[in-house]
Amino acid sequence: MMIGINDDEFIRGDVPMTKQEIRILTIAKAKIKPGDTVIDIGAGTGSLSIEAAKIARQVFAIEKNPDAVDLIEQNAEKFSVNNIIIINAEAPKSLSAIKNVDVVLIGGSGGFLKNILETIDKRLKAGGRIVINAITIQTLNDAVDYFKNHSNYKYDAIQVQINRLQQIGHYDMSKALNPIFIISAEKL
Amino acid sequence: MMIGINDDEFIRGDVPMTKQEIRILTIAKAKIKPGDTVIDIGAGTGSLSIEAAKIARQVFAIEKNPDAVDLIEQNAEKFSVNNIIIINAEAPKSLSAIKNVDVVLIGGSGGFLKNILETIDKRLKAGGRIVINAITIQTLNDAVDYFKNHSNYKYDAIQVQINRLQQIGHYDMSKALNPIFIISAEKL
Amino acid sequence: MMIGINDDEFIRGDVPMTKQEIRILTIAKAKIKPGDTVIDIGAGTGSLSIEAAKIARQVFAIEKNPDAVDLIEQNAEKFSVNNIIIINAEAPKSLSAIKNVDVVLIGGSGGFLKNILETIDKRLKAGGRIVINAITIQTLNDAVDYFKNHSNYKYDAIQVQINRLQQIGHYDMSKALNPIFIISAEKL
Amino acid sequence: MMIGINDDEFIRGDVPMTKQEIRILTIAKAKIKPGDTVIDIGAGTGSLSIEAAKIARQVFAIEKNPDAVDLIEQNAEKFSVNNIIIINAEAPKSLSAIKNVDVVLIGGSGGFLKNILETIDKRLKAGGRIVINAITIQTLNDAVDYFKNHSNYKYDAIQVQINRLQQIGHYDMSKALNPIFIISAEKL
Repeated sequence: MMIGINDDEFIRGDVPMTKQEIRILTIAKAKIKPGDTVIDIGAGTGSLSIEAAKIARQVFAIEKNPDAVDLIEQNAEKFSVNNIIIINAEAPKSLSAIKNVDVVLIGGSGGFLKNILETIDKRLKAGGRIVINAITIQTLNDAVDYFKNHSNYKYDAIQVQINRLQQIGHYDMSKALNPIFIISAEKL
Repeated sequence: MMIGINDDEFIRGDVPMTKQEIRILTIAKAKIKPGDTVIDIGAGTGSLSIEAAKIARQVFAIEKNPDAVDLIEQNAEKFSVNNIIIINAEAPKSLSAIKNVDVVLIGGSGGFLKNILETIDKRLKAGGRIVINAITIQTLNDAVDYFKNHSNYKYDAIQVQINRLQQIGHYDMSKALNPIFIISAEKL
Repeated sequence: MMIGINDDEFIRGDVPMTKQEIRILTIAKAKIKPGDTVIDIGAGTGSLSIEAAKIARQVFAIEKNPDAVDLIEQNAEKFSVNNIIIINAEAPKSLSAIKNVDVVLIGGSGGFLKNILETIDKRLKAGGRIVINAITIQTLNDAVDYFKNHSNYKYDAIQVQINRLQQIGHYDMSKALNPIFIISAEKL
Repeated sequence: MMIGINDDEFIRGDVPMTKQEIRILTIAKAKIKPGDTVIDIGAGTGSLSIEAAKIARQVFAIEKNPDAVDLIEQNAEKFSVNNIIIINAEAPKSLSAIKNVDVVLIGGSGGFLKNILETIDKRLKAGGRIVINAITIQTLNDAVDYFKNHSNYKYDAIQVQINRLQQIGHYDMSKALNPIFIISAEKL
């Protein structure tokens, strides 16, 4: 059990990164098993891809931003992970070549969530799982709406709010991280 | 009913300011009435003092930072409030001249919370109220500890976490404010 | 300044009631002034209507549930408020007779939020305000969507999460209240 | 990677149980590795012990309540975990026989947190970790205070608030779980 890399261990640049606690919960909700094929859409710095790659057989990291692609490569090298295939493209276009998928992680959907979910549906195995991290209420609503209207999925959703206690001299001051919605669906 | 000035209406400088929602809840929990004498300890920009002064008879704003004192004066003038007496000093020293107090607001205690509460106790009327805003767990703990050990007070405490939905194009993204503890005590 | 009645002072029955902190923030965000005409849709126990009625000229409490109507009457009597007109009906039907409205509070919309907002729009003065309390993501989304698509409104939205510290012997244990979204819009 | 058992898969009775998301974060913050010796103090239903036992070499589950001890046994059997030693006793008394500990999880301390931490300190390896779940501000404060005053530890602390979206017909309603503080310390 290796999940839980600290945020400051990743090479980051200016690319936004999923925070440690959200990564941990996302990977756990995804129930990734050895042997699994995973797609990480909107991979950013690759932090989720790397945590997933330590458990799964193969991770496809989809990322449209070339700067972020560089970071994924650097982080994969830093953490000695060699089962990530990086695809520098925008979902859903790049997804059609990948088959028999066990788990899809969606951290960024660029406004194409519905199209992405429709494309994924054809490539995801029965029993496969989709875990979406949403920072906007529109993405949350689109995700919930999709799964409510597709009876071949059951879903649950949580909101996670983390406050970190920052140590300032004798004091510990609550610093809030922005809340994240995590929507987890299983294909029946 | 006039409480609820927007944050951006106050003149602020670099002094930290209690956010609107916390101001509203603090003033409401203080149950300030017309005719009341109020002390605002650690007045900062004066935002709480000004909301209090629109209801109370007299507000004493205690603030050790001279830059903040200037801001309180400017804000009092901007909001046409003329019943605030600003005391440029550090509590509890400056409190002994004030008598028959109905309400004490404590936004900053500079590590002297216990001494401040002991000094206040002698000057607060029966039925009077103390409302403390705490951003550290030590201040929260000191406040709760004091009231637990003084049977002439009953208290309640809440934690308030506000997320503001920031409008970014077609999206609304949750931005977290740091959580605040509000401890409210009534002198029996 | 009188807002901030404690929850346990209201007569409640089995009808769900807006909690004190949410009531306080809702009334403050509504910026109710003396002289205002207010509509409270989905009035429930009447707790918001009563807080509003202490400031406004006239409050119309719209409530479809006859048991809740009884509670509003009892609470209005208990708090000596005589400027609430209770309408036992389901919005938006009952709204068309009310004109020149300054503030509309929406605590319950029974799935008709869009229709309610369209009906209100014709009766709300320029400069008037609508404040919606949402407990579901669908109501939140419908409210935000409406105001995003009607350029004669500007809006802001917050999520409020309150934890109450429950006193159990020497301990204070955090008990969470369910989070509420408060959407506030001003008609330009 | 197997952490993340759903709450309803555990046999529970009336014993309070750490919720899934908190279990996941606690186990991840504990950085349990194969070969580790783990102590779970205040084991309750055994849900944390079982997640830990799937990774560690040996887990000692300390629990004073005989009814809870039964549940731990039943759950260990249900999840086919055979490396948990259950000790029906109250910490810190029962801890002295256990040596070379890698990880200590503290879910319940019965008011003896300081004594427990002092006893653990003698049995915990350098590089070992302590992860405390606190539901009261006193336990949070005691934990932070202990680590602040013992320079052979570094610590971090977070507050976790989870809202679950409950599906009710066409709606998803936010239901709050009580917030938990997770304090993680590493022995230098």
